[in-house]
Amino acid sequence: MTISEDDTMALPGKLIGNIVITDKRGIDELYNTSFYGRPRENTLELSFAESAYLIYTGKITVEFEGTELDFKQFFLKAGSLVKNFELFYIVYKDLRERGYYIQPSVTGFRVYPRGGHPGKTPAEFFVFVTSERVPLLLSDLRKHLDAADNLKKRLVLAIVDEESDITFYEVKTAMLTGSSGLNLDKALAVASLIEDRCMVWDSVAANLLHGSGFFGKPMDEGHLQLSLVESGYLLNNGILEIENGNHEKPDFIEFSRLASRIETDFEIKYKVYEKLRTAGLVPKTGFKFGTHFRVYKNLKDISNITHSDYLVHAIEDDHIFSLQQLSRAVRLANSVRKEMIFGAVDARVSFFVIGRMRL
Amino acid sequence: MTISEDDTMALPGKLIGNIVITDKRGIDELYNTSFYGRPRENTLELSFAESAYLIYTGKITVEFEGTELDFKQFFLKAGSLVKNFELFYIVYKDLRERGYYIQPSVTGFRVYPRGGHPGKTPAEFFVFVTSERVPLLLSDLRKHLDAADNLKKRLVLAIVDEESDITFYEVKTAMLTGSSGLNLDKALAVASLIEDRCMVWDSVAANLLHGSGFFGKPMDEGHLQLSLVESGYLLNNGILEIENGNHEKPDFIEFSRLASRIETDFEIKYKVYEKLRTAGLVPKTGFKFGTHFRVYKNLKDISNITHSDYLVHAIEDDHIFSLQQLSRAVRLANSVRKEMIFGAVDARVSFFVIGRMRL
Repeated sequence: MTISEDDTMALPGKLIGNIVITDKRGIDELYNTSFYGRPRENTLELSFAESAYLIYTGKITVEFEGTELDFKQFFLKAGSLVKNFELFYIVYKDLRERGYYIQPSVTGFRVYPRGGHPGKTPAEFFVFVTSERVPLLLSDLRKHLDAADNLKKRLVLAIVDEESDITFYEVKTAMLTGSSGLNLDKALAVASLIEDRCMVWDSVAANLLHGSGFFGKPMDEGHLQLSLVESGYLLNNGILEIENGNHEKPDFIEFSRLASRIETDFEIKYKVYEKLRTAGLVPKTGFKFGTHFRVYKNLKDISNITHSDYLVHAIEDDHIFSLQQLSRAVRLANSVRKEMIFGAVDARVSFFVIGRMRL
Repeated sequence: MTISEDDTMALPGKLIGNIVITDKRGIDELYNTSFYGRPRENTLELSFAESAYLIYTGKITVEFEGTELDFKQFFLKAGSLVKNFELFYIVYKDLRERGYYIQPSVTGFRVYPRGGHPGKTPAEFFVFVTSERVPLLLSDLRKHLDAADNLKKRLVLAIVDEESDITFYEVKTAMLTGSSGLNLDKALAVASLIEDRCMVWDSVAANLLHGSGFFGKPMDEGHLQLSLVESGYLLNNGILEIENGNHEKPDFIEFSRLASRIETDFEIKYKVYEKLRTAGLVPKTGFKFGTHFRVYKNLKDISNITHSDYLVHAIEDDHIFSLQQLSRAVRLANSVRKEMIFGAVDARVSFFVIGRMRL
């Protein structure tokens, strides 16, 4: 293949159904050289995104019902036949022009690693193309992730915003582990529940809880304030008793019910908190970052707290991501050099890392 | 007043109703020296937050129904009598210990500027105290802002998170103006509406719209993609006609109806977009920042785009802020050195800047 081939006449193609078909010259001139399309016995099949790009670059012409369609006509035709055609085209063009070889898949593209191409290397990424306006179901994200995992591909979301800019996010399952154990005596103290937090009055217990357990925040020397999830966790582990305004001591189930009335997310927050603590991590409130938790992987000494490693947000199993919210959460986490992680609560808790990537 | 006074006996006070009262020694020893409380003829009235702090620092004792309450007993009693007492106390203690003089007000505190105090200077800030868990109505925020404006005070939100950390936000009304005018001919082009965006096919028009109007994003040389708000604005100003898939040309009202079906926020987004454009600013999508718009104040040359100045999010007049979301939005904006602005859409559009502050 030589440069002069770029000067050959555009190859004629036909729009049939939802694809464009060229004769077998397409296999040589488009597939073998540049990996456009899928070769069949004597023809080459091109997706609409590929075809639009090849019309744009003057490599093919496309005829439909006896008339040749120009770029605009083909684009409008394709848009009327294939949902999200325009999004697919934007992403296709972007990746292709940045040197990637791409093959279409049902929900987006399979993308080959730099230097790789069909027949030489397996595809590296599954790119799922969507619009910022379309809410993303966690259950769908899980399906895409499972499909990608099964084929050992990396899952990429290509989100096209209203001005046709593309943001790429990589989604991965995450196993979180840390090195902070829980070494506190049972029945250490009694705390008072005051409105939406608990107070430990005993200064020895307060110092132990804060100093070796990394729980709560000292209000002053001797008094420690605990959040609802912290209080629930300590109660559930027999370390703390909690007394309400009527001098009653609710058990964990009663406390959870109470806490859920104060904080609607309490149940899922608690499950994620417990999972993180059990895995040796220390979660603290993530309010300043707009998430449920900021999480420390290796907290050793309360007087020497480094930056937290993760921002973790608890979500229900039937969660629907607003992509605008997702974008904000990931952008914020990355701007403070933390990973944004979602903890999906089902019978068990599973973690997903979502991060911006340069593809 | 001399240091030795710190060694005097704690002053006895009585809890009566929702205040604590000392005899007239309080006026001398607490008000005249340190501006605690409100002097009456022969007594000093202290709020619960002041009283708890004065018990904690050993300056007063408090008796209730014949019994002296210790710090814990007073704290629990106050918590049972005054809503949000604990939040008020946390904020009171924080500000007081950082050298501010403070007087209670209905929803929080009046805070005197550094170096100032009651009788010498007017208060500088109205500090509204709330919990991260309590949603904030825009209508309430407006009331606080009006009250503060009327008395020439700065409005501060003190938001206490679940671990009792305080974040301070200043809220201001904003007048936004820029220097980018709209200099485009009427009836410049016809664009095609394809799913959720519009395409301008004519390359001269595309270049004018993009180059001098700062509209849209070039898909390639000659083709320009416009967002729905941009398309609506150009249609409404007679610069663009829009053709849908059935070769019909909707007018602005029909287009708005269509666009609102694609994008539920279209109407408020459009009003904010129009207001910004009319004021000489250039709004572009803020998707990457999780907001409706990023906004340029002085865009002169499309080939030399600097950083945008504001992130602007359109909200309904009956909007309810989740403080977690607010925190995330402001934090993100500030992390990229932009101001976070909310555009509240009523009969007209009013802008509020919300930014973190160090008080």
